[in-house]
This record gives sequence, structure tokens and C-alpha cells, in this order.
Amino acid sequence: MEDHIKEHLQKVRQLSPLVHSITNYVVMNNTANALLAIGASPIMAHAEEEIDEMVALCGATVINIGTLDRFTIPAMVEAIRKGNELGKPIILDPVGAGATTFRNEALRSILEAGTPQFIRGNASEIMALSGSRSNTKGVDSADSSLAGRQAARSLAEEYGCIVCVSGETDIITDGEKEIWIHNGSPLMTKVTGLGCTATALLAAFVAVSDNPLTAAVSATALIAICGEIAAAKCQGPGTLQLHLYDTLYAITGDELVSRLRMEVVS
Amino acid sequence: MEDHIKEHLQKVRQLSPLVHSITNYVVMNNTANALLAIGASPIMAHAEEEIDEMVALCGATVINIGTLDRFTIPAMVEAIRKGNELGKPIILDPVGAGATTFRNEALRSILEAGTPQFIRGNASEIMALSGSRSNTKGVDSADSSLAGRQAARSLAEEYGCIVCVSGETDIITDGEKEIWIHNGSPLMTKVTGLGCTATALLAAFVAVSDNPLTAAVSATALIAICGEIAAAKCQGPGTLQLHLYDTLYAITGDELVSRLRMEVVS
Amino acid sequence: MEDHIKEHLQKVRQLSPLVHSITNYVVMNNTANALLAIGASPIMAHAEEEIDEMVALCGATVINIGTLDRFTIPAMVEAIRKGNELGKPIILDPVGAGATTFRNEALRSILEAGTPQFIRGNASEIMALSGSRSNTKGVDSADSSLAGRQAARSLAEEYGCIVCVSGETDIITDGEKEIWIHNGSPLMTKVTGLGCTATALLAAFVAVSDNPLTAAVSATALIAICGEIAAAKCQGPGTLQLHLYDTLYAITGDELVSRLRMEVVS
Repeated sequence: MEDHIKEHLQKVRQLSPLVHSITNYVVMNNTANALLAIGASPIMAHAEEEIDEMVALCGATVINIGTLDRFTIPAMVEAIRKGNELGKPIILDPVGAGATTFRNEALRSILEAGTPQFIRGNASEIMALSGSRSNTKGVDSADSSLAGRQAARSLAEEYGCIVCVSGETDIITDGEKEIWIHNGSPLMTKVTGLGCTATALLAAFVAVSDNPLTAAVSATALIAICGEIAAAKCQGPGTLQLHLYDTLYAITGDELVSRLRMEVVS
Repeated sequence: MEDHIKEHLQKVRQLSPLVHSITNYVVMNNTANALLAIGASPIMAHAEEEIDEMVALCGATVINIGTLDRFTIPAMVEAIRKGNELGKPIILDPVGAGATTFRNEALRSILEAGTPQFIRGNASEIMALSGSRSNTKGVDSADSSLAGRQAARSLAEEYGCIVCVSGETDIITDGEKEIWIHNGSPLMTKVTGLGCTATALLAAFVAVSDNPLTAAVSATALIAICGEIAAAKCQGPGTLQLHLYDTLYAITGDELVSRLRMEVVS
Repeated sequence: MEDHIKEHLQKVRQLSPLVHSITNYVVMNNTANALLAIGASPIMAHAEEEIDEMVALCGATVINIGTLDRFTIPAMVEAIRKGNELGKPIILDPVGAGATTFRNEALRSILEAGTPQFIRGNASEIMALSGSRSNTKGVDSADSSLAGRQAARSLAEEYGCIVCVSGETDIITDGEKEIWIHNGSPLMTKVTGLGCTATALLAAFVAVSDNPLTAAVSATALIAICGEIAAAKCQGPGTLQLHLYDTLYAITGDELVSRLRMEVVS
């Protein structure tokens, strides 16, 4: 696995994949900066009229419902349909799943139109999406990530996809295998959109990889470890975010692997 | 008052209130980061379809018209109606009031649908909203904050609410009492959205308080003082913003109170 | 030219021009911060209903199609029409031109409604807009800026405007004269929206100037040189962005001119 992680990081930097995002307004700037920092090329585009061309042009497409409205749902529905048609990976970030009926129904529409290859969320969102109960607290998780294990496996089986649950322990599962990443810092929860940033990085790794599980582990490890390094240097959440971009840009494959605290739990 | 300010800060950090914002695209990221830094939990959601649930779910709702369009007005109107119905506080930030007919009419629609518990703006905006004359200069104030005193009192009386005028001197009034905060730094005007950030922090304090005037004073003092500390450390507006988040995260109640330069003027 | 550049910088700081932007969601915060840092006053407003008043109120209007949707096109069309009517300069940033049919058609609608006084883009965008072939790579350029020379001249002649091509060498042309700026840093391409920031600064300079070519050279030189200074101090793209704002705020006319590496090529 360690060699694959190093290889993935190198490939993103060399191939500079185009990553298309239909995403929320809060994190557009952050996630574009994170993608540029790792060497990828971000495009934010949500107009229904250009979705087919954008999906075709890019290596992967993120669908993130953070600041959802009815004007954007058709573009999300079309993106997953077109992605499936062309064999382009779709990464779904169900921000605030379970918080409102509107979000739940939009997620249902999206998932009826196609199958995502990856779903990443916090435990509350993953539990809400899988239909298991959760104490939703807006867009932040009310549950520890480990509480989302079973829901993640169910979702992964249901859609034949990889599910990532972010939290104190990051969980990545394809429904059978389950990998835990113990890196990261609690201070990362005090910067908005680092979950969404994890989703964006995942898209970049997926775009250059033919091993979905390894790509997901690599992207998850990368942001957790860079966040951990940034947290060690920073004076608070403001400086953490800066150091995160600097670290994403500068980290070597060797440093990444040397800090990795990974556990294969099944 | 000093003890109440310390208590409010502590309560926000302990209770981590959910703050709902229908806000402008320029400041979504900033205000989310400021809310997280003080320990609150931000949700940005503007879809009419989920407004009722969001207002019900959260401790307070911000309505900020900075990048207004006709698609979002119905959500703002519904938010104030629902907030009033449920007894949830609504904080109105009338960005650019007076600059265009469209903004003035949208504000009229919102204020016909319900009553805000708090209004925060710069002097030009508060004067425009109260119907008194002002030299509007886009979204930045063309007037010193003290020029907005009378307009603030009128508005507070008219709506039975608290009005905050940001500027060199921050003014907080309930129409009778008037409190001035002399903290802050002129460099804060060179960072976009710090007025909107003050509004967001106000919402967090209001959500955990049963004393509206004290909550408003606490939030206003917090950002002014943290901005002042950040300005003293920074090399310019870029680094000021960072240090502001770091300071919001780290400041103690004692430090906050020791730096407070407050004046009760009536 | 050097004296004009110093004079322009001083004028922006003294007159604090209002700059209106109909721009993309990724860069709204950045560009507002850059405008504030140089002393201008930004307004982001995209509602069709207030476009005429905003164009009339402000010194210049930016039209940036980065996150285009059909709801915003009428406002862009009206802005260029009104700007032409009132003699207010329009600065067009054709983000992602050539990437999709939707963008190309929107650009055609805008350019049928009026004439921009300035167009700024990367080489791929300028080549796509002029109708010459280009290897579009999403919103990042697939071409070196010098590859866009001929396209820039053609566009400048066609519209009687100034065209700026950003890249390793920045090119500014009015169709006859051509000026190259050799400042900047490759690390600037790892921060999102610095091209859009160049466009925003251009609008501020244009708003206070009666010499379009010199205004364009001044704005282009300012961001390239401040980016170069910031890159020399930073640890990566995160810290680069911060230092950029600090430098835009603090740089003197003398420092600007002393670092200028300009070439008049025709």
C-alpha cells in the first residue's frame, strides 16, 4: 500500500488531472486551492447546459450538495448520468444529508440517475444516506466516525462503490475490506470545508488511478497527514489552513508514507 | 457587563450553537471560519425548500443581502416569517442598503414579512434603512459610524430590536440604551466581509443568550478586540485575516475583558 | 511609462474607486480582498434588476464568466450595454472560453450586446475568443502566453480594445503597440483566481485613468511584481496568497518601478 500511495501522489503531480466540481459556495475557493496545491487542475461549473462537456473533458466529477438549491439539482443528476455513460468517476459528498427533507430528496434523485464510484461524508451524513438513524447536527457530525462503520459498509455494498467516513479515525471501505487512517488533528474541524477538500483530493487521485480503493486511501491519508503537519506548525485555525496548502504542495512521498498510521481492519 | 461578556464567550464555546446563514457569496467562507473559530457550527443554506427546517434546527438565522438576487428573496422572506413564528432570532445585515432600488425593495419585503431581533450594518446602510439620508458608497460606508446614531435609535424603536452600527466606534442600541465600543483597527476595513463576520458572530452569541443587548455587545466587542490584536501582529490585510481566526479561537474571557474600551452613553 | 505607473497606483489609493464585478463564486472573496488591499472599493452584484444602477454607480465593471449559468447571462449582457451607453469601462474575463459551447455562446451574446474596453485572459482563452485554435485545458491555459500574441492583436483590433494575456510573460496590446511584462512567479499558478485578480485590479486602475494602455500595464505590472515579492517570502501557495495581499497594500510606487521588467516589443 505504501508504494501505491507514493505512486499516486507522483501521478497527480505529473499528470495534473482536470477535476470538475459541482460544489458548494462555501468551499469553492478552498477546494480549488487544495487541488492546485497537489498539482491538479480544478474546474467549478454547475450550469446544466455545459455539464456533459465538462464531465467528458475532466478526469473525475465531484457532486457536493453543501449549498444546494433547486436550480443546481438537474446539473447534478445529469453529471452522474453522463459520468456513468462515459465511465468517468463520480464522487458524491452528501453534505448535510439527513438535515432536511430537501437534501434527502435531492440525494435520492441523484442516486436514482446513476451510481457514484465514491461517497465521502462524516458519520452523520453516511448514516443518514444509508437509512440508519443518526443525530444530525447540521453539517457537522454528531457522531464519531466509527459509529458510521456499518452504514459505510452497507452503502458500499448497495452501490458497489468506495465509501469514506471522515472523522477522528478516517474509514475507507469497499464493503468488504476496511481501512482506517489514524492521522489528522482535531483542529482541522475548526476550518470550514476540509471534508469537502478531502472529497476534491479524492477526485484528483481517482482521475489518475485504476485502483479505486488505493486511490481513496491515498487521498484520505494525504489530507489527514498534511493537516497534522499543518496543525503542528500553526497558531490556530487561520494559520492551519495556510500551512495545509503549503504542505500539500511540498510534501514528499517518503514523508507521507513515514507518517502514515494505517490499519487494515478486515 | 464584563462578567456577562466572559460568560457569553464561554457559552458559545461550550454549547456550540448551530448558526444558519442565508448570506452572500463573498463572505460564506470567512464567516463559516469565524463561526468555527469561536466554537459555533455554521450552516449556509438558501434554498426556499429547506428554510423552515433550517430555521427550526438552528439557534439563530442570519439574513445578509450582500449578493442578492430574486431567487433568494423568497427564502429570506420565509426565514424571517418562520423565525418569528418559532421565536428564533433573526439577524439582518442590510448590505448595500440604499445603493439600489432592488436592495431597498427586497429589504422592504423582508421587513414586511417579520421582525428581526437584530440589525447590523455600517452607518450608510443603517441610515438608508431608517429612511434618513446618507451618502451611500456601494457596500462601504460613506459616513462615520457616529453619523448613524439617530438612525440606529429610530430603527431600534421601530422594530423593537437591537441595532449595531459598525465603524471606528461601534454602536449598539436598543432604542434607549446606547453602548459604544472603541476597539478595533482601521486595517480591518481592508479585509472583505469583517462586517458580515460581526453579524455572524452576533448570531452565535444570540443563540446561546437570553439577554439580547449583552449578546450584541459581547459579539461586537469580540470581533473588534480580536481584530485589534490581529492588526497589531500582522504585516497587512492578508495576515490580519489569519491572525483574526487564530485569535477568535484562542482568546480568553479575561483577555477580552481587559482590552475592552466600552462606553455607556445613555 | 514608469512615472505613469507610480501615478496610477497613487490615484487608486487616493480616489478609492468603486469596482463592480459580476464574477465567479470561486474568486469573489480573493478579488474583493485584492481590491481592498490596493485601496479600491469592491461591489459584487449580479442581479439583473440592479445592474443598471450598479454600472452607473461604479467606476468600472468586470464581467467574469468563471462559474457561468443561464441566470447570470442577462445581467452580463445588460452590464456591457449599459456600460457602453454611459461610457463606463467594461473589463471582460472570458474564463474557460473554448471549453464548452455554453461558454462560447454566452461570450457571443455578451459581445453582441456591446464592446468591452478591456479583455484579460490566459492564452488559451484569448485564442478561443479570437477564433484561432487552442488546446483548451479547462480553465488553465494549455498554451504559453506568447502563443496568444497574434490572437490578442486580432481581438484588440476587432473590438478596438486593450487585450491582456497572462502567463509567464504578460502581454498587453491595443492591436498596434505591444508591451511585455516579465515579472511574476510560476508559483502564482498554484493559487486559484490570480488571473481573475489581475482582471479586478485592472478595473480599479481603469476607473481612475484616462490612458487605457497605461492603466492596463500598471495593473498587470502591479500584480506580477507583488506576486513575485510574495513568492520570494512564502513557503508555498497558501502563504503566497497572504503575502500577496500584504504586498499589494504596502508596496510603494518606487519599489514597483524598480522591479519592473518591461519590454516594448512594437
